[in-house]
This record gives sequence, C-alpha cells and structure tokens, in this order.
Amino acid sequence: MMNKERLKRVITEMKKLGLKQILVSDDPSIFWLTGRIVNPMERCGAILIKDDGDVHAFMNNLFCFAPLDGVTMHYYADGENPYKLIADELVPGPVGFDKNWASKHTISILKERNDIIPEFGSEPIDICKSHKDESEREALRHAAKINDMAVEFGINHISPELDELTLSNMIEEFFEKHGAVQDIQLQYVCYGKNAAEPHHGAVAGEMLHEGDAVLFDLWAPINNYWCDMTRTVFYKSVSEEHRKVYEIVKQAQQAAIDFVKPGVKMSDIDAVARKVISDAGYGEYFLTRTGHGVGMTVHEPPEASPSCDLVAEVGMCFSIEPGIYLKDNVGVRIEDLVIVTEDGCEVLTKYPKDLQVVE
Amino acid sequence: MMNKERLKRVITEMKKLGLKQILVSDDPSIFWLTGRIVNPMERCGAILIKDDGDVHAFMNNLFCFAPLDGVTMHYYADGENPYKLIADELVPGPVGFDKNWASKHTISILKERNDIIPEFGSEPIDICKSHKDESEREALRHAAKINDMAVEFGINHISPELDELTLSNMIEEFFEKHGAVQDIQLQYVCYGKNAAEPHHGAVAGEMLHEGDAVLFDLWAPINNYWCDMTRTVFYKSVSEEHRKVYEIVKQAQQAAIDFVKPGVKMSDIDAVARKVISDAGYGEYFLTRTGHGVGMTVHEPPEASPSCDLVAEVGMCFSIEPGIYLKDNVGVRIEDLVIVTEDGCEVLTKYPKDLQVVE
Repeated sequence: MMNKERLKRVITEMKKLGLKQILVSDDPSIFWLTGRIVNPMERCGAILIKDDGDVHAFMNNLFCFAPLDGVTMHYYADGENPYKLIADELVPGPVGFDKNWASKHTISILKERNDIIPEFGSEPIDICKSHKDESEREALRHAAKINDMAVEFGINHISPELDELTLSNMIEEFFEKHGAVQDIQLQYVCYGKNAAEPHHGAVAGEMLHEGDAVLFDLWAPINNYWCDMTRTVFYKSVSEEHRKVYEIVKQAQQAAIDFVKPGVKMSDIDAVARKVISDAGYGEYFLTRTGHGVGMTVHEPPEASPSCDLVAEVGMCFSIEPGIYLKDNVGVRIEDLVIVTEDGCEVLTKYPKDLQVVE
Repeated sequence: MMNKERLKRVITEMKKLGLKQILVSDDPSIFWLTGRIVNPMERCGAILIKDDGDVHAFMNNLFCFAPLDGVTMHYYADGENPYKLIADELVPGPVGFDKNWASKHTISILKERNDIIPEFGSEPIDICKSHKDESEREALRHAAKINDMAVEFGINHISPELDELTLSNMIEEFFEKHGAVQDIQLQYVCYGKNAAEPHHGAVAGEMLHEGDAVLFDLWAPINNYWCDMTRTVFYKSVSEEHRKVYEIVKQAQQAAIDFVKPGVKMSDIDAVARKVISDAGYGEYFLTRTGHGVGMTVHEPPEASPSCDLVAEVGMCFSIEPGIYLKDNVGVRIEDLVIVTEDGCEVLTKYPKDLQVVE
C-alpha cells in the first residue's frame, strides 16, 4: 500500500522545489513509496504525484500491479498507448521526470502535450530516501549482519588452492543462500598487489602467496537493502611496511567514524580520514572518496567526498572506507556502514578490524 | 576507430527516416560504431551523427576515450557542463535521442536549446545492427561454440547431489573461464516441474529426481556478442508423455529452422513452429514467442513472434526456441541461434538435439 507518511514528506520536498507534479519510475523509488517491486523492463510504468496529494499509477496489466489505496489506477495493455493516459492527467507547466527513466518514455509523453516542460524530478524522493526511517534502518542492520557473516566466510575459506574468482563465486553463493537476490554483483576478492587497484574485482587464475594482503569488498542487496563492507587481512605473514599501512588506514577509518554526528559536513568527514593518512605521509595514495550513501541502491547520496555539500542528518546511511593503495605492492581498505544517530553514529558492520594474519 | 562503412549505413537509414541528427549513447551502439567500450555510468557520453557526415563525440576525460579519426572530439571534466557542448553543435529542429539514455541527459540538453525538438533516435542504428556483417557473424559463431561447450559441461555434471543453483553457478564459472564477462546473468537450470515455468531461473535447494526433465537455458556475452541456447534432457528415465512432448518440440523447432530464409516474415516463422505444436494438441501450452534477435544485446530486433512485422534478411541473427510447458508436470524447450543466409540459415549452436536420458 502507499506509504502515506513518506508520500507526505515527498510532497513537502516538491513544494520546497516548486514542483507541482513528478513522475516516479525508478524501481527503488516505487518500492519505497508502495512496498512493491515493479520491474517493467522496457515497458512504461510510473506513479504521478501532484503537490495537492492527487496520485495516479500507470501500469501495464502484465505487471499484475494491484490497486493502491488512495491512488487512481490506470492500467493499459500491450498495444495500447500508456503515454496518452499519463498526458491526460498532467497539468500544463513543468513536469518532473525521474533521472534514469529511459528517454523514450519522456519523449513519448512530451509528444502528447505541447504545454508541458520537462524538469528534473528525482530530487524530492532522493532527499527523503537519504533519511532512513526505522523500518529501513532495521533492514540495513539485517543486511549488514549477513555482510559480517559473508566476510567471516570469506576469511575462513582463504586457501592457496583457490584463485580470486573461485573464492568470489563461493561468497556470491553464500550471499544467495542468505537472502541476496540472484545476479548480484561480482564480489571483490583481491590478492596481493591486485588490492592496490581500488576497483579490481576478482580474476580467474590469480593465486595467493605468503605475505599477500587479501582484500574482501563484499556487497549485495538483502531484501532490497544493500550492504557493503571491506576487510583486509594478510596471508601467513605481514611485512612491517604493510602493518604500518594497515594501522594508518584503521586509524583514519576510526577517526572518521568518531567524527560523524548530525550537522557535520560530509566533506569534513572525508577531510578527517584524509588528514590522518596525509599526516602519516600517504596522502597521495588515498585514491578514492571516503564513502557513499547506501540504501535501496548501493551508491546514492550523500557521499563523503571533498565535493559534497550535504550535511549529515539523523537517519542517513553511508560507508566510511578510506584506503591506501601502493601500486604493484599492496592495498588496504577498511569499510563499515554507519547510520547517523542523534549524537553520533551507529556502526552496522561489526566484524573485527584488528590486523589479522590468516594461516 | 570509426567504422566508416557502418556509419554510412546509419546515415542512409537516418535519411530514410528524415532524421538530420541523432545522439548515440547506448554502450553497444557506440561499440558497434567505434570498436570501443565506453561505460560512462551516470555521466554523459554521446556521439552526435549528422546526416551530412559530420560526427562529434562528447566524453568525460575520465573515460580516456582517445580521439577518433574523422570525428570532432569534445572532452569535458567533472564540474563542466557537457550539455552545453552538445547543444552548441545541434542544428535547430528534431534531434534523435537514444531510447535508453537516462532522461536527465535528454532534459539537460533540451534546457540548453529552445529550438530543438526531441525525437526517437535509435532506429537508424538498431536497423543496421540487426544485419550482422562478417566480423559480427564470426563473433556470434565463437560465442555459440562456447555455448555448446557450456551445455555439454552442464549435462556432464548433472547429479542428484547438486541443487539447481549450485549447478547454475558452476556453469557461470565455466562461462567466465571461457571469456564471458563477470557479472553475467543467472544461468537457467530447471529440474522437473520447474521447467514448466518459462522464466524459472535456478533456485537453491531444488533437487533432482528420477524422471525429471533438466532444462538448461544458457546465455552469456563472449567478447561483447551474446550466445543463447537451450537443451532439455531427462534424468535416469523418461515417461511416454514426456517423450511425446519432447519429440513435438523438436519437430516444431526443426520446422521453423527449415522455414527460415530471406524474405519470409518473422511472424510466419513463429506460425510454423506454433502450427506443429497446435496440430499435436499442445497449442495452448506454447507460452512464449518463438524467438528473439541476438547480437551485442541478448534481446533485440527482430523477434519471431505473431506481432512482428519484420521480414528475415541476410545477416539477421535470432533464436528459434519453441517449447511446451505443462504446469506442475514438465517443460521442454529447445533453442538454437541462427543467422539468415542467402538461401536459408546457418545454425550456430550444434549440440545434438536427439532425446537424451542421462544416468
């Protein structure tokens, strides 16, 4: 059913932005509003929200999208024109379109009416979605718990006989058996110098050697909410240099976590982590932003980066994941998810972060 | 480098459709034109083609997209406005936008110019792409060969100890080790009555029993070209009813393949398969279309369905995959990829289709 409280928050944001009508088509946004997953693939499916509270849904009857309380339903069949149905309900003037809706839909609606003006329409929902309510926080906590288990599973299965891709696939299967949807993303399992590339995934034939770092960056959607965490351990031994790098990253990550509370700038969270690493002489090897928002999508606002103007507010969920990447040598990243609380933040991922050497 | 021959074909189609300028943004279309994969994620990347042969590319400098011979390059950095660059090169009037480009890009360009009209812009390339040239046919043949091997691998690993998902994951790994990109789709492995659902994937905990059908629908992109094939075998024994259903599907599939040649209507290819199954009394259990185009995407024009008005032409590649789906009982589907030749078609997938009972 339509979540009335969320709808009200969206309309408040629409009014702030001066948007009288928006068309919501992104799957996670429709789920967030209605609790229903609709995946129209190449077909047209959207919910029209007007700032006076009038709401319409437009769905192909193939989707089996049941009526929603308080929403005027418009069903169409293949061969019928859904864009005419939508256009008939619009008022003249600006119309907000969801940022990622395929252009063919937007163009089809524009062709039906010459008195409407296309506008960016995702912001009211994106702003609301970045503040997780209690049911969402609970979903994120549950996903993080599976994530902790997946990291533990990965670390327990480290073996010189498994190449990166095989271990990655085993973790993928572990996630699937614990509620992740099928077709999840590649799980990052990086051995040795491969960990020095922040976006190295997991490659067939890449084998483990004594002294290697083993970086696990694991992420999957569990009941529609994502988890995302990273742990780096070492295989059989750890060099002094690698130990030093590890401790700096750990300290930077903890400093950033300790800094999070309502009202701090997201860019300052990044700065706190960056300062620890820079002060230790590794500033140029911290190649990424410090974190990104996580919810029904794995990368969403707010991000903890030098260029983010947003301020941390209660209920926001994001990652804290500084790293040091020494090319052809080693990479260390430690990542947790946090939710901003009244006086700080709750750390969702709990797998220990003390340096671990695995036999 | 820009493929001049393909560009010429696109411009010919643009002229037929009266399109003076199109913005190409779909990754496979850019690859098809330039031989380069560009994956701009949420950023803006596009190639502007005008019907007089003037071509411009607009790329974020993060993509490392090298200059293209004969193309005016426009690079921008994060923080700069790429839409102004694009808008400055457009002539007044209709502009074709790629069907799947995120609406935020299209709207951003429309905001820069009030003298342009948004139009559907994918058709010129989509038409050209449905006719595979020799290099593309070779890529499809290679992908089909891996597909044959994957089916053989799956059949050889049928075991009462493996649930659907485990066997599916083993096949996924096989594909990855033979050149498929990582993060490929779920491989369909369906036991017994699960095969009666045309879109059943592979589920953890679903086990095999004597007399079950085992349906493998395997698909993956190999060097950017997709393969897609289905074989159905039986485990330990096969009932008379299932044998009968199998032979009907096999006959329908062969009849459709034998019918394919340049000039036949795609809807008639569907009708040929459908008639065999209907005449045998199972018409109502053939729940899908007969086939779909395959190339750099796994579902593309032309489709072999009752509603497709297209005509088979030399170089088109599509699947032929009739099936009979008896709910709570059994499903049988046999699928090959074919390429239309001067006097018939070339069948790319070659794994045998005689009924097979696996011990």
